[in-house]
Amino acid sequence: MRRSVTVRKMRRAYDPPMTTQNLALHIDAHPEAHDRLYKQIALRIAELIEHGTLRPGARVPSVRELSERENVSISTVMQAYRVLESRGLIEARPQSGYYVRAKLWSPPPEPGKSQPTRSATRVSVNDLVMRVLQATHEPSLVGFGAAMPSMQLLPTQQFNRTMASVARRHPNQCNSCDIPPGNLNLRTQIARRAMESGCTLSPDEIVTTCGCQEALNLCLRAVAKPGDTIAIESPTYYGILQIIESLGMKACEIPTFPRHGVCLDELTRRLDSCRIKACIFSLNYSNPLGSCMPDEKKKQLVKILAEREIPLIEDDLYGNLSHSPQRPKTAKAFDKEGLVLLCDSFTKTLAPGSRVGWTAPGRFKTQVEHLKFISSIGTPTLMQMAIAEFLANGGYDHHLRKLRRVYAEQVGLVTQAITKYFPEGTKVARPAGGYVLWVELPPQIKSLELFERAVAEKISVAPGPIFSPKQKFQNFIRLSCGTPWSEATDQALLKLGRIITRMM
Amino acid sequence: MRRSVTVRKMRRAYDPPMTTQNLALHIDAHPEAHDRLYKQIALRIAELIEHGTLRPGARVPSVRELSERENVSISTVMQAYRVLESRGLIEARPQSGYYVRAKLWSPPPEPGKSQPTRSATRVSVNDLVMRVLQATHEPSLVGFGAAMPSMQLLPTQQFNRTMASVARRHPNQCNSCDIPPGNLNLRTQIARRAMESGCTLSPDEIVTTCGCQEALNLCLRAVAKPGDTIAIESPTYYGILQIIESLGMKACEIPTFPRHGVCLDELTRRLDSCRIKACIFSLNYSNPLGSCMPDEKKKQLVKILAEREIPLIEDDLYGNLSHSPQRPKTAKAFDKEGLVLLCDSFTKTLAPGSRVGWTAPGRFKTQVEHLKFISSIGTPTLMQMAIAEFLANGGYDHHLRKLRRVYAEQVGLVTQAITKYFPEGTKVARPAGGYVLWVELPPQIKSLELFERAVAEKISVAPGPIFSPKQKFQNFIRLSCGTPWSEATDQALLKLGRIITRMM
Repeated sequence: MRRSVTVRKMRRAYDPPMTTQNLALHIDAHPEAHDRLYKQIALRIAELIEHGTLRPGARVPSVRELSERENVSISTVMQAYRVLESRGLIEARPQSGYYVRAKLWSPPPEPGKSQPTRSATRVSVNDLVMRVLQATHEPSLVGFGAAMPSMQLLPTQQFNRTMASVARRHPNQCNSCDIPPGNLNLRTQIARRAMESGCTLSPDEIVTTCGCQEALNLCLRAVAKPGDTIAIESPTYYGILQIIESLGMKACEIPTFPRHGVCLDELTRRLDSCRIKACIFSLNYSNPLGSCMPDEKKKQLVKILAEREIPLIEDDLYGNLSHSPQRPKTAKAFDKEGLVLLCDSFTKTLAPGSRVGWTAPGRFKTQVEHLKFISSIGTPTLMQMAIAEFLANGGYDHHLRKLRRVYAEQVGLVTQAITKYFPEGTKVARPAGGYVLWVELPPQIKSLELFERAVAEKISVAPGPIFSPKQKFQNFIRLSCGTPWSEATDQALLKLGRIITRMM
Repeated sequence: MRRSVTVRKMRRAYDPPMTTQNLALHIDAHPEAHDRLYKQIALRIAELIEHGTLRPGARVPSVRELSERENVSISTVMQAYRVLESRGLIEARPQSGYYVRAKLWSPPPEPGKSQPTRSATRVSVNDLVMRVLQATHEPSLVGFGAAMPSMQLLPTQQFNRTMASVARRHPNQCNSCDIPPGNLNLRTQIARRAMESGCTLSPDEIVTTCGCQEALNLCLRAVAKPGDTIAIESPTYYGILQIIESLGMKACEIPTFPRHGVCLDELTRRLDSCRIKACIFSLNYSNPLGSCMPDEKKKQLVKILAEREIPLIEDDLYGNLSHSPQRPKTAKAFDKEGLVLLCDSFTKTLAPGSRVGWTAPGRFKTQVEHLKFISSIGTPTLMQMAIAEFLANGGYDHHLRKLRRVYAEQVGLVTQAITKYFPEGTKVARPAGGYVLWVELPPQIKSLELFERAVAEKISVAPGPIFSPKQKFQNFIRLSCGTPWSEATDQALLKLGRIITRMM
């Protein structure tokens, strides 16, 4: 029974929990799992551990023994044991076999509330970001650097079939230029889906864009001018910092809590002391922090900003990647004044190559529509039509459910590996969605140096300084968990832990 | 023989000339010509006229007579005669049959050199442009408004097959995000083709973009800041005016000659009197003027700017659409200092729906590459790969040759219809490439009013004021000749002529 209690403790600390049921989902979702026999084996052992039949330190049946008893191949049992091992339930002892882990894994501490400077500052991060970016997109590296979804997890074949079918049925429409606000079918599908995040949108309120990044650019240009101050989360996605820098605006960083994001009290104080022209926040599973503001607080945020007539650009790029079945609401859901400009895209969940995104810019719709035309005339038509069709008939929901489960698992596995391999004093955020992990290393570690050393060993990470206007967060890194777990992932994290330990 | 001399005169006035050979090309290229028999008929009659066998005012054989003699259907002969009529070689007389035109058509006078104000001005054109744009993209209108290539003239089916094939062969690559500078295959093809315009480019010097419009945005942001003054052609493409306006820059209009574009003497004077930060010129078949700067003058232009270290953003969107077989050079071909930022796209010649363009920004490459990432991360990957493949193997040159012939013909036919239907005092530019016609109407005509009246009669035109920072060119319109000639085109131009005449 002690075992079961420990598992429940983990369950509380983690969402989704590391249970037998969860293990089953993990195996189901694993894209490389061709042989399904091993699943039964793994689940049986996991159950025995969970129910306390196999106690900590107990030897589990040998591979050969189980293979004979269950009449399955050696390799099937091996596969099952590797899964159990990577999930932290059993461990291998050289020349001796597998044992139930004596000390079950418990999650590392979380970073604290961020403490940025209070004043608005010029942003100076672009050159560093581009240098890091070149390295993180190098395909020969084990990639924790770029927050890209793994190709293995996307329904590319199916999406390609949809594209070919749409092109065949509507050749001329697909090859015509589609001026803003963009393809009506796609806008209709987006409006329909917005209900899930609590929004009532009509297709007329939506403008399609070249990805979420263009949407953020257009929205920011619609609400603010060069020299204006923009409130951002601390830490914040470097792409937002680059936009602010490139437009000659200033940033005012708002402190965040690691789980719930922007501190509303501090925000209110800054709003009343600085001349803030607009906010850009990512309220659901922010990048890099992974924080998610509770819906009740979002309502409060929208009210605070409405009282001051300050627009909120809401970056909801990861909102669909909740680790639990229900996705959170957007701030837009509480927006009565048209002051929230919601931005999102399909590049993280379905088609990174398509670069199709969208925005519902509220009362700024006309300006955004004009700026879209001025910036790039239109968004590729076929891509918009194919995504519309996929949303309507392609099983997007089914795909999203799978993606959420896999990302939940991967975030859990990387966290666990960090606990095993990284030195004492490491703190890790506990995102309830998305696939990035914000990691605070011991204070003496310089993450830019770590970045260089890791690249030399063929591993990419995103160093903390790219997530702040003045390159703070010097002992933080962001690890992307977008790639399905493998032995190589484990080895790379082990190696990374060793590099960090050597740097201390 | 007199006939032949007159035809030769036309040939001098026009390029390509209205000869028998030209007529043959016209028929060949005509996308609706399923029945090819009529071509022989039309050519035979055209030859008889050209050689003087059929003299001006002579009756041509009746439709029935020719049908019996040649053993072809009545409708075939009718089709042949309609082509000859629309080319201005014969005319119908009611109840009497067809006759060789007594007075062969001669082209209308050209507009003079433009005379913009000398000082730099704020641009204020965006709201008007967007209002016009909504109307011109209404599909139920006969469209002379939007400068879009007709779907009938593009190899869409073939391009779709290329796309499907590329997606099938490289599913993961196609669905991955392609960060700047963009797809290497495409950049390689672009570099290879740049030789035709006299440029020696390496793929490393090129950045792919979401259409030429994004390229122009990025280049302008790379070389100038809000408040800076940019030299532009007078008239200039409204999209460029919108970029300048949206970035809070000022415009300094340079006078142009209708055939050769920017007046270099005047440019030099402005460069020495105003603080001009950069130039944006479209030197080959500028939109809306259709002017083409001779290559020798381009060399001089590049020298003038290099002496002053002033960057030139060169919009070569129409450079491939020369009406003669040889395309002109770009200014980039003469650029030794890396001060020319060449911009182009495939949206006017191959795939408007793809929104794929590119720039070779010389010494500003790093800034442009960064701004591309900040603005939209990347350009849709599949679109880039499919265009690369089409350029390599799809018969793009063959397609371009056809497109050039058709556009030459269509520009000629619209010019001719203007001569017939528009009131005295109308002047028409004589572009040697592209498919837009810049038309100067009698001074009392207000083209914005004409625009509204034409829309009411289901015809779209682009009013002159959208092509200047302070909405000058009030009695000018731009007619796009992108759609293959038809009875509907002819009727719409007739109607347009009547509206204009009523407004006098």
